[in-house]
Amino acid sequence: MSAHRSGESQRRRRQARAAPGSPPGTLIAHPNAHAPTVRLMGYGPEGCEEHTLIGQDSLAGIRAAMTRFPVVWVDVEGLADLDLVRALGAVFNLHALALEDTLNTHQRPKLELYADHLFIVTRMIRAEQAPATEQLAMFLGHGYLLTFQAEPGDSLEPVRARIRQGRGRLRGGGVDYLAYALLDATVDGYFPVLESYGERLEALEGTVGANGGSEQIRAIHGLKRDLLVLRRAIWPQRELLHQMSRDSGAWVTDATRIFLRDCYDHVVQLTDLVETDREIAAGLVELHLSALNVRMNEVIKVLTVIATIFMPLGFITGLYGMNFDRISPWNMPELGWRFGYPLALMVMAGVVGGLLVYFRRQGWIGGAGRTKGRR
Amino acid sequence: MSAHRSGESQRRRRQARAAPGSPPGTLIAHPNAHAPTVRLMGYGPEGCEEHTLIGQDSLAGIRAAMTRFPVVWVDVEGLADLDLVRALGAVFNLHALALEDTLNTHQRPKLELYADHLFIVTRMIRAEQAPATEQLAMFLGHGYLLTFQAEPGDSLEPVRARIRQGRGRLRGGGVDYLAYALLDATVDGYFPVLESYGERLEALEGTVGANGGSEQIRAIHGLKRDLLVLRRAIWPQRELLHQMSRDSGAWVTDATRIFLRDCYDHVVQLTDLVETDREIAAGLVELHLSALNVRMNEVIKVLTVIATIFMPLGFITGLYGMNFDRISPWNMPELGWRFGYPLALMVMAGVVGGLLVYFRRQGWIGGAGRTKGRR
Amino acid sequence: MSAHRSGESQRRRRQARAAPGSPPGTLIAHPNAHAPTVRLMGYGPEGCEEHTLIGQDSLAGIRAAMTRFPVVWVDVEGLADLDLVRALGAVFNLHALALEDTLNTHQRPKLELYADHLFIVTRMIRAEQAPATEQLAMFLGHGYLLTFQAEPGDSLEPVRARIRQGRGRLRGGGVDYLAYALLDATVDGYFPVLESYGERLEALEGTVGANGGSEQIRAIHGLKRDLLVLRRAIWPQRELLHQMSRDSGAWVTDATRIFLRDCYDHVVQLTDLVETDREIAAGLVELHLSALNVRMNEVIKVLTVIATIFMPLGFITGLYGMNFDRISPWNMPELGWRFGYPLALMVMAGVVGGLLVYFRRQGWIGGAGRTKGRR
Amino acid sequence: MSAHRSGESQRRRRQARAAPGSPPGTLIAHPNAHAPTVRLMGYGPEGCEEHTLIGQDSLAGIRAAMTRFPVVWVDVEGLADLDLVRALGAVFNLHALALEDTLNTHQRPKLELYADHLFIVTRMIRAEQAPATEQLAMFLGHGYLLTFQAEPGDSLEPVRARIRQGRGRLRGGGVDYLAYALLDATVDGYFPVLESYGERLEALEGTVGANGGSEQIRAIHGLKRDLLVLRRAIWPQRELLHQMSRDSGAWVTDATRIFLRDCYDHVVQLTDLVETDREIAAGLVELHLSALNVRMNEVIKVLTVIATIFMPLGFITGLYGMNFDRISPWNMPELGWRFGYPLALMVMAGVVGGLLVYFRRQGWIGGAGRTKGRR
Amino acid sequence: MSAHRSGESQRRRRQARAAPGSPPGTLIAHPNAHAPTVRLMGYGPEGCEEHTLIGQDSLAGIRAAMTRFPVVWVDVEGLADLDLVRALGAVFNLHALALEDTLNTHQRPKLELYADHLFIVTRMIRAEQAPATEQLAMFLGHGYLLTFQAEPGDSLEPVRARIRQGRGRLRGGGVDYLAYALLDATVDGYFPVLESYGERLEALEGTVGANGGSEQIRAIHGLKRDLLVLRRAIWPQRELLHQMSRDSGAWVTDATRIFLRDCYDHVVQLTDLVETDREIAAGLVELHLSALNVRMNEVIKVLTVIATIFMPLGFITGLYGMNFDRISPWNMPELGWRFGYPLALMVMAGVVGGLLVYFRRQGWIGGAGRTKGRR
Repeated sequence: MSAHRSGESQRRRRQARAAPGSPPGTLIAHPNAHAPTVRLMGYGPEGCEEHTLIGQDSLAGIRAAMTRFPVVWVDVEGLADLDLVRALGAVFNLHALALEDTLNTHQRPKLELYADHLFIVTRMIRAEQAPATEQLAMFLGHGYLLTFQAEPGDSLEPVRARIRQGRGRLRGGGVDYLAYALLDATVDGYFPVLESYGERLEALEGTVGANGGSEQIRAIHGLKRDLLVLRRAIWPQRELLHQMSRDSGAWVTDATRIFLRDCYDHVVQLTDLVETDREIAAGLVELHLSALNVRMNEVIKVLTVIATIFMPLGFITGLYGMNFDRISPWNMPELGWRFGYPLALMVMAGVVGGLLVYFRRQGWIGGAGRTKGRR
Repeated sequence: MSAHRSGESQRRRRQARAAPGSPPGTLIAHPNAHAPTVRLMGYGPEGCEEHTLIGQDSLAGIRAAMTRFPVVWVDVEGLADLDLVRALGAVFNLHALALEDTLNTHQRPKLELYADHLFIVTRMIRAEQAPATEQLAMFLGHGYLLTFQAEPGDSLEPVRARIRQGRGRLRGGGVDYLAYALLDATVDGYFPVLESYGERLEALEGTVGANGGSEQIRAIHGLKRDLLVLRRAIWPQRELLHQMSRDSGAWVTDATRIFLRDCYDHVVQLTDLVETDREIAAGLVELHLSALNVRMNEVIKVLTVIATIFMPLGFITGLYGMNFDRISPWNMPELGWRFGYPLALMVMAGVVGGLLVYFRRQGWIGGAGRTKGRR
Repeated sequence: MSAHRSGESQRRRRQARAAPGSPPGTLIAHPNAHAPTVRLMGYGPEGCEEHTLIGQDSLAGIRAAMTRFPVVWVDVEGLADLDLVRALGAVFNLHALALEDTLNTHQRPKLELYADHLFIVTRMIRAEQAPATEQLAMFLGHGYLLTFQAEPGDSLEPVRARIRQGRGRLRGGGVDYLAYALLDATVDGYFPVLESYGERLEALEGTVGANGGSEQIRAIHGLKRDLLVLRRAIWPQRELLHQMSRDSGAWVTDATRIFLRDCYDHVVQLTDLVETDREIAAGLVELHLSALNVRMNEVIKVLTVIATIFMPLGFITGLYGMNFDRISPWNMPELGWRFGYPLALMVMAGVVGGLLVYFRRQGWIGGAGRTKGRR
Repeated sequence: MSAHRSGESQRRRRQARAAPGSPPGTLIAHPNAHAPTVRLMGYGPEGCEEHTLIGQDSLAGIRAAMTRFPVVWVDVEGLADLDLVRALGAVFNLHALALEDTLNTHQRPKLELYADHLFIVTRMIRAEQAPATEQLAMFLGHGYLLTFQAEPGDSLEPVRARIRQGRGRLRGGGVDYLAYALLDATVDGYFPVLESYGERLEALEGTVGANGGSEQIRAIHGLKRDLLVLRRAIWPQRELLHQMSRDSGAWVTDATRIFLRDCYDHVVQLTDLVETDREIAAGLVELHLSALNVRMNEVIKVLTVIATIFMPLGFITGLYGMNFDRISPWNMPELGWRFGYPLALMVMAGVVGGLLVYFRRQGWIGGAGRTKGRR
Repeated sequence: MSAHRSGESQRRRRQARAAPGSPPGTLIAHPNAHAPTVRLMGYGPEGCEEHTLIGQDSLAGIRAAMTRFPVVWVDVEGLADLDLVRALGAVFNLHALALEDTLNTHQRPKLELYADHLFIVTRMIRAEQAPATEQLAMFLGHGYLLTFQAEPGDSLEPVRARIRQGRGRLRGGGVDYLAYALLDATVDGYFPVLESYGERLEALEGTVGANGGSEQIRAIHGLKRDLLVLRRAIWPQRELLHQMSRDSGAWVTDATRIFLRDCYDHVVQLTDLVETDREIAAGLVELHLSALNVRMNEVIKVLTVIATIFMPLGFITGLYGMNFDRISPWNMPELGWRFGYPLALMVMAGVVGGLLVYFRRQGWIGGAGRTKGRR
């Protein structure tokens, strides 16, 4: 996990952008970018068609589909082919900055209104790669939705299935409704991820303090970091959906706006979950530190009890181990007593007994059972 | 408590929603959903009628009641019967998203204005299940209020009693006043719960530190978590009531708005209480950590006092336990002195006395009484 | 203090309101409510009259006074007589919710505009009961100001004196100016209370750490709690006065608005003081924890110094206390040396001296003076 | 410092205001108020005149100056003469509340628009008295600026010099520009103070942890408190200047507004500095606590190393100090070995060597150099 | 790093401004200011010219260029020559306050609209001097952009290269587009700096706790301080770019506004990174403190284990080292037993074995492997 995460974050930081000072709109392919697959879906109330297009022929296929279907969704997976991106940009008159943002796959979710299209950036998550997220860029224009993703595989498959099967409103809706469906699938993809983080927090909550090692605080710290990453992906989606449902002008119909508001509510729930998890994680740090302290108290109590019992005993044995000349009757007469040794043993037993009573009254010792129970 | 809570939260997270990417408005019954009971109350200034309806016959009963009474309250308890929900949705022209939210019982409190009805979601609490809350969904339309709850039992019984008895303004008020009465009963249900948390905090405040175990910090942590859950239920109700009293258009009369503002004041008091309790809980963590530190100080002081007294004594006894040849007059002449042993004892007593004076001056020991008092 | 406080807070929580679900406007007398005393003051530029009215006769007295004086202030102390409250409500056409809030004496300060009157709730403080506050409810209508307080005694006496003596603008001002004067007296009453908290904080600041017991952290915790209570009373007054000076419509003249703005400035100063005190208290917790740590360091240093000095000495004495057969010349020849014992003593003295030098260099010991000075 | 500060704060709290409930506008001289000095400066593009006026004659002098100069600045230092204040209030028609605020020298910086004048309160600082501040009240009317300060000495001398010398725009500007110049001088006076706090923080940063005493945390706590006081003086000036540059109506010309915006930028820089310093101070507390912990770790390591080395040695010496009867060949035959003692010494040396290797591997000891270096 | 930083901050604080009370617009050269180099670039769609101008001749050169090129960029590096600054101010009619801010190189980033020009202040960073930043002041007027920097070297070279090579839109854009290009280069310069801080945080994350010294907390503290400085430089740029893209009136074309919005998005990403890094650093402090505690626990456990094992052994050896007279059969008969010594050894071995079992059950010892693994 940790190795994966730090790898992810370095990638983000290292190769995220063109050199400072490059002209805006400079298109640079990510060195590890995948070769593109272009998946075209055209559909309308009457039917739907699906093609996988290759290279420059894509453009002709897209144009053809747009004449036949009210809605055409062009999904480009893989961003290595700059010529293709430029060609699509030219066909649909996409703004150079939007194209740059499309290739630079570390944007925050946002909405931009251009003259010829809406530009939407959001971030998808897949449970197996969390907390890493993948950028999904959308251009919403007249009769088409153009999406770009960097990597193969996404969380949009259920939407494709709904188009194919003609379930729900998708076939009858416009491009804006398709964009909503993708955003909604993206947002819903975060719920299982946050569920799993919630479960990991609960698991930690149960074990924290049982073992005072430093792995626990590292695990909590790792969770906090991951939640920080998730939060950074989720919060701007809130703003994005708020803007979409309010400021998207004629690009979005009123009917779709109601759906976007519902999607907005889901993002609000996500932010709620993330913030709650963050507070719980902060509480775990407190629990952990308190447990460390309690354990140290226990250990020191044992040390003190042992030392307090054996030091006086050691003093007594040392006392009668002294070698003062017994010639003088003042020197260590106890050694000559008939019951000197038994008496000394009894004194020692008395010291031990008295101290045990004292410790029990102080609550420092309570029998083996209690000491165990406390741990 | 903890078992119950974590169970609750897992349920919330696990089964809260349809699979990501499902079409919006997909109605899915919760696997453990209860079979529905439909309770119909029709009333007006002149009288009131109450029926329990079953299955599809409900619809006819509802239609009949709506012709006879100015206000009809249809309360559905149990969400297992999707057909019934769909039928009600068709009769009252309810929006698909609102119906989905109704079945997905983990919504945040919110208000949605649709063309034909207001859609209100709030969360009820019952003291015996706190901090878990139950969703209450309301559809406020012309002449009817439709409410959905997942589980039998609620905190709305006093409102029903007021309708039956004709007390207060309810019989004379419209549907909007009924909705207010339900919201008000819901909000007021949180007060006893917060009272009990306040009392638990006060109880903890009294005992914290008396016993340094880790149960206390766990108890505080549990309270903090519960307060987090309550806070998440209460805060959005604030926004909901604010919107209700301001943006609810023609659905709510000006007279009712005044009552909603009063209810809003109550929610503000609730948020005040929750935030105060959270601050007090944070203070308890500090108290607890400080108490742990104070106790560790005490234990270490005892250890130090014991060691500081007995180590010099042990040294003296060891010294005169050495076996240097007494043939040389330079070797341990003290052992041959007539009063060697009493002198050694006096030196040791002097050492002990001096150290006791030193410790008392340092404030490390203050007699048994003080040590006890400090604990 | 603590007993009083927790008593107060339980009262607040326990008996603050009617059972959840009661009809709004239900009037319930607090079980410990005082019998009411009605004090009427009528005044105008020319003169002033003062009466104490009893029971239902009050109404006639009030009506009479309103015909003779431009301003009539009816002050009801004690809320046990529901009939009287209802009668006043009927005479002045007071809103049922406002009356309910009047009896439910744990409202947050707020302002409500009704058709026939302004309804103002604020909270008075008396130094001897701090941080408990007493609710003051005011109805400001045409020619009258009606105030309700739960307990005898208040901080409004200076205002009464000003009316009697005709000092200041009061006699010449209207009902709105009287309301301002009462709010101003209420706000000013918080200053001496915050002064005394400030002094207690300063006292704690001086003593914190001098004695590492847990009473200090309890005292700080108590102060933080009290400040929390004060803050909850003060912050809403800020909003109240802001609204009064801006949104109170025709009920308040422009001349009085200037005075209300001044009063608002005072509340802002109060919030400043409370927040500053809270930050100082948070700093005290840090000071306390640091002092605990410093003290533990000191104690452990003493233990380490003692152990480090006496353990090597003990080893040497033990060494020469061994009983190896002196027959072999290899066994403990030192014991037979003429200066064996003095040499051993010198070695021991050397060890002690060396360690003392080391400790002094480490800064662990610095002479009795420094050790004392540090505490 | 600390003595001065707490003295200051008590003064603030004690004598800041009239008794609660006094009529607004009650003028009360501070018991330690200074006798007033009235300094009049009249100037215009052509020239400037300066007088020191005494008592009631001041009024005539002021009136005379106002006929001759476009701008007259009347600066009253010392607030003991209530008659003078009242007379000035009558001449310039100053609002009673503004006069009360003038005498009550613990106002927050603020701006009030009255019909006949702007009333500005701000707070000046002088490095030698920081963090205490002195109130500067200004009345800006037609052709005059009236300023009140409680104590002799201020940070406005450079402005006076600029008027006298005719440098800069002052002579040609109006009353509003003079007010700006005074506000600007006031704001700039905070920079050297914050510089000195920044330097003290840096000094503390260098020494924190070098010596684990509690003076350091007290010093940090003192700085934090002072910064709290400064912050309370600076933040409202931000609001004041914002209002001045925007809402001051016809009292301020557009040309001066540009200068006020510049001054506003300076206050924003001040708030930046204060907040940064507060965060640095919070970091110092962490540093200090960490240093305490590191030191305690060091001390306990020394104790553990010493005990772990000498306890086994002590056991061995004790073993061969036992007095079992050598008659039995099973009892302590080692004592009779020819090389028993050298062997015992070698065993002990081996134990010590082994432990030293172990400790070095654990990183607990690293040679004297390292131990020193770490401190 | 630390030396450099504190040097930087002292400079900032010490020499940042004219003496308090100086007239606004006072131009004061920084004592260490560099002699100016004036670099002029004139360009248009057709071509571009570049000159380095010297002293007062600069003005003629600038005038000449402005007649020939639609865009003239005058870049002044070094602020020592007040005459030049004044001359430029006179030629372009620059506001005195803006010129003062130009020389006072510690401004926060901001935007000011003057009648004849926009005044923009921002701060550039260079990786090798981070977190120190250099002020870049720009005057955007009709046909010219005038920039001032204090030190030679900047992050604008790529923009110059783009002008020379005619790449991108620069040649065809106006003065506003040039300003955008400079702002964009400035903003992009922060990314590599934040990357390097991110890497340092990750490095610290890996090593924290491995070694409990106080260097780590100092390193974390240093990072936190640097992030504080960066944050102070970055946040106001957010506001600046927001204003530029919205409130800059006719100075900025709509086409350029889109680019400024993109640049604004970049600053938002920067603030995201800074805030995330700050939270991670705060988490590191927790990790560090927890690691210190874990280590102290380990050390104390070793001490307790050692003491608990050897103290009973020491007691037994001491017991049989006592010198009671063996004449009495009650005194120490064990010493005379045939197998007394082996028995004593067995008892001791039994004590050790029992304690080891106890410690292992307590989880205090787990074999050498585990103890090492835990560190």
